[in-house]
Amino acid sequence: MGLIVQKFGGTSVANAERLRNVAQIIADTYRQGNRVVAVLSAQGDTTDDLIEKAREINPNASRREMDMLLSTGEQISCALCAMAIETMGLPVVSLTGWQAGIQTNSSYSSARIKKINVERVQSELDRSHSIVIVTGFQGINKYGDVTTLGRGGSDTSAVALAAALKADLCQIYTDVDGIYTADPRHVTGARKLEEITFDEMLELASLGAQVLHNRSVELAKKYQVNLEVLSSFEKKPGTKVKEVAKQMEKTQISGVAKDKNVARLALVGVEDKPGIAYKVFSLLGQQNINVDIILQSIGRNETQDISFTVRRSDVDQAVALLEEHKASLAFDHIDVDKSVVKVSIVGAGMVDNAGVAAKMFGALYDADINIHMISTSEIKVSVLLDEVDANHAVQAIHDKFFGE
Amino acid sequence: MGLIVQKFGGTSVANAERLRNVAQIIADTYRQGNRVVAVLSAQGDTTDDLIEKAREINPNASRREMDMLLSTGEQISCALCAMAIETMGLPVVSLTGWQAGIQTNSSYSSARIKKINVERVQSELDRSHSIVIVTGFQGINKYGDVTTLGRGGSDTSAVALAAALKADLCQIYTDVDGIYTADPRHVTGARKLEEITFDEMLELASLGAQVLHNRSVELAKKYQVNLEVLSSFEKKPGTKVKEVAKQMEKTQISGVAKDKNVARLALVGVEDKPGIAYKVFSLLGQQNINVDIILQSIGRNETQDISFTVRRSDVDQAVALLEEHKASLAFDHIDVDKSVVKVSIVGAGMVDNAGVAAKMFGALYDADINIHMISTSEIKVSVLLDEVDANHAVQAIHDKFFGE
Repeated sequence: MGLIVQKFGGTSVANAERLRNVAQIIADTYRQGNRVVAVLSAQGDTTDDLIEKAREINPNASRREMDMLLSTGEQISCALCAMAIETMGLPVVSLTGWQAGIQTNSSYSSARIKKINVERVQSELDRSHSIVIVTGFQGINKYGDVTTLGRGGSDTSAVALAAALKADLCQIYTDVDGIYTADPRHVTGARKLEEITFDEMLELASLGAQVLHNRSVELAKKYQVNLEVLSSFEKKPGTKVKEVAKQMEKTQISGVAKDKNVARLALVGVEDKPGIAYKVFSLLGQQNINVDIILQSIGRNETQDISFTVRRSDVDQAVALLEEHKASLAFDHIDVDKSVVKVSIVGAGMVDNAGVAAKMFGALYDADINIHMISTSEIKVSVLLDEVDANHAVQAIHDKFFGE
Repeated sequence: MGLIVQKFGGTSVANAERLRNVAQIIADTYRQGNRVVAVLSAQGDTTDDLIEKAREINPNASRREMDMLLSTGEQISCALCAMAIETMGLPVVSLTGWQAGIQTNSSYSSARIKKINVERVQSELDRSHSIVIVTGFQGINKYGDVTTLGRGGSDTSAVALAAALKADLCQIYTDVDGIYTADPRHVTGARKLEEITFDEMLELASLGAQVLHNRSVELAKKYQVNLEVLSSFEKKPGTKVKEVAKQMEKTQISGVAKDKNVARLALVGVEDKPGIAYKVFSLLGQQNINVDIILQSIGRNETQDISFTVRRSDVDQAVALLEEHKASLAFDHIDVDKSVVKVSIVGAGMVDNAGVAAKMFGALYDADINIHMISTSEIKVSVLLDEVDANHAVQAIHDKFFGE
């Protein structure tokens, strides 16, 4: 008995049958005596279809009009879901982002939620005892214009509503049934986690486990919203994401993640004088190119090498930028390696266990896998490997930590 | 140079090519130095597709949720049209019904406009010098919920906006290029009218010429909005609808219309005592069944007959209702004739020309067509005929008034 916010993604509401299934989950939760707010994404391919329609007319359409267009997708799925709940004889009302009081800044297509005025939602919950269906992914700015929140937007809408309503739980229904110790499609023995901390989830999300968007996890951590990731297709417990999580027996980490969207750049033959690294990384930063693992070799002769990783999708832009400043950066040439992968272990318990990194390196050594670069933080260790070794490496590390 | 409201129907915005054409019409009007507000319907079959989606989920969906669903159709066409105008380098903004300040009552699916708060539209026109694209067919009620206006809704939105903005002209772009003296698909020699009065248009609209919805014409008459009906496919002058119209040379009428949605009922053997007619018509009125032509025969013996016409779609309901009250109405039986048609002539000049009705009857007599019932008003004469005679009758009347 409490207030529960439930979020359903595009796959979960893709057609009439699935919408009925979602309506059933919502109705069951309501009938158990809870107040329920459900946040929905647009159905399946709706958003892509709308983008295609826009491209046909104007490939450079303004973001304001794109948001006006795309926001209809969630309005359709929410109205249809409300209709499905009506057939069950329960009180229900669908609300758009602006009706639900979701106020954002004016960055069309990637707006940030500034405030939620929950008056309307609260009144529907309390006075009409209605189930409230809210369009995810969208809000309204101070000019009264419709905005969308960009990637992962519906997760963010759900968590923000849960925070504003002081909900007891925010359930993210998706097409996987929880967070796993590794990708179960590729790793034998991958197990579902019962609980995980916000920090671990953040590392896993940014490392390529695409279950929850980082923005929503950050928001959940900030407002201490209890999150749960679970499947809309199978009725079983999911994974709880919270501030402090139960540790799995005997294991020191929560999961192994793989990120292919990475490439290694090396500036070869850089003059060995102060300030060069600073220049390189501030240049890239100004263009919003994120640099991850950095390795600066010790100078031999008068020159040294600086290696670092960027997102693979940023490589061309990064190389062009560096070549443009070749004279002032004074390097000889750039080496690019796109056939690398980043494999990481994440665990809140790591900080107290000095041997964790060594155990990971040992697993890779036993598997005869070469490590190019290493980066560590309080709760994760990442290594850069050849892409061909990726699945083998993840399996070896997983076996080492989670094997019998 | 002025403020022009332009309305484009679903056929006119059905696909990317047509949307570009509409954008061109709007842009041309703007480039001529006018301020332009365009009101758009949903694209082609969008509304029907959404209704089908709803039916699949819940055939008895609440009207509130239906309006939430259907209102997305215009939002899509308006955003796409704005994008098309953006490619022409002109300032443009699309607005939903609620953004454009269109306030309605709460009769979901058939809402009436109560007031338009034009602040936002006016500011876009004056301060940003933008073209403003507004979703037709929809508004917002006092609870902040989306409403739709029902049939003919977009015409009504356009005229209401024109009235509220004190526009110089309201152009209704459609798939015909104006109002004709008769249906040009069926009548040889049918000519386009340059001008027509509001009253004539109202009669023609209610008589089956489905170019403009009555609600919009009534509104235009009430607020003296200059209307023009013209084609979005061909660039030529349309028909102007105004308070006083130029008369076409030598003709005393503006047009001949045919209405097939009619049926004749006869209560046979009604007792000849006062109050029966009143009972019959108030009974039908309470059920929103409109009665049109009425003929009460002179009593022979102790009984008489009462004949009248109703919409063909209302016949079954009317018969059931009358049979239910057979005892108190004291009639013998009901005769139903569904194979009838109503043919009418309309003309503001009729009131000064006593011979007009006689000329119509003469045309029918010459063509050997039998008249069942007759009804007249200040600006029209209607006759009820056998349906098989309909086209022949319209042609004969048209020839008599408009022939060389």
